[in-house]
Amino acid sequence: MDGCVFCKVVAGEIPAAKVYEDDAVVAFLDIGPISDGHTLVIPRRHCTNVHECAPEVLSAVATRLGKIAKAVVEAMGADGYNVLVNNGSAAGQVVEHLHFHIIPRKTGDGVLTRWPSYKYAKGRMDEVAARIRGNL
Amino acid sequence: MDGCVFCKVVAGEIPAAKVYEDDAVVAFLDIGPISDGHTLVIPRRHCTNVHECAPEVLSAVATRLGKIAKAVVEAMGADGYNVLVNNGSAAGQVVEHLHFHIIPRKTGDGVLTRWPSYKYAKGRMDEVAARIRGNL
Repeated sequence: MDGCVFCKVVAGEIPAAKVYEDDAVVAFLDIGPISDGHTLVIPRRHCTNVHECAPEVLSAVATRLGKIAKAVVEAMGADGYNVLVNNGSAAGQVVEHLHFHIIPRKTGDGVLTRWPSYKYAKGRMDEVAARIRGNL
Repeated sequence: MDGCVFCKVVAGEIPAAKVYEDDAVVAFLDIGPISDGHTLVIPRRHCTNVHECAPEVLSAVATRLGKIAKAVVEAMGADGYNVLVNNGSAAGQVVEHLHFHIIPRKTGDGVLTRWPSYKYAKGRMDEVAARIRGNL
């Protein structure tokens, strides 16, 4: 798409530290990593976010995630990794071309560890579930 | 798998606030949400994490994420959402059955906003990329 930075990476018009590419996806290092080896996996075909991308595009990316993540983990000596897609600016999305972050993690590294979980008040969980089911 | 909490949810042996299910996946509310409507999407077939799951299992989950995320966002009046998979305890994985978190977000909610990004030292990025490529 015109003006899309990641489409330019796909087209080779902007340099990137690519680690993998094939007919459907390109993977390259995030230039602003939150851990060494932080990698982005994107579809060649432009789409914005998870709910606006065609299922076959999501499938193409998802089926490559495992082998790329494994290579990232092995290369970095990581203990685990997060796979993350931020959808919409409210969720931290900056570039509006679908990208799956692979974030290698080491035990106790303090990255993405803030997890402010809570419990629903009585009755609220059923109410929320019913509301979501009503939209499916 | 014996002893797997999420396999028991799939089998209906443990109650869950389900929002969607079909022949391949089950989606239900996280009992310890980090935002209202926080939903988990899991494959019926047991596997542990992204790199150990068969590509067709990942594809099955990925192709359902869009419609489920859209319903979650609409139901909760969210402005965006994160899709997150924690792989390994170092990355925050607690239940060892692959699960995609859908975390609805509102602008300025303060959830998952800590993003400690940095720049690689000169030469380091190429070195990291080469090491990952060497594992692919």
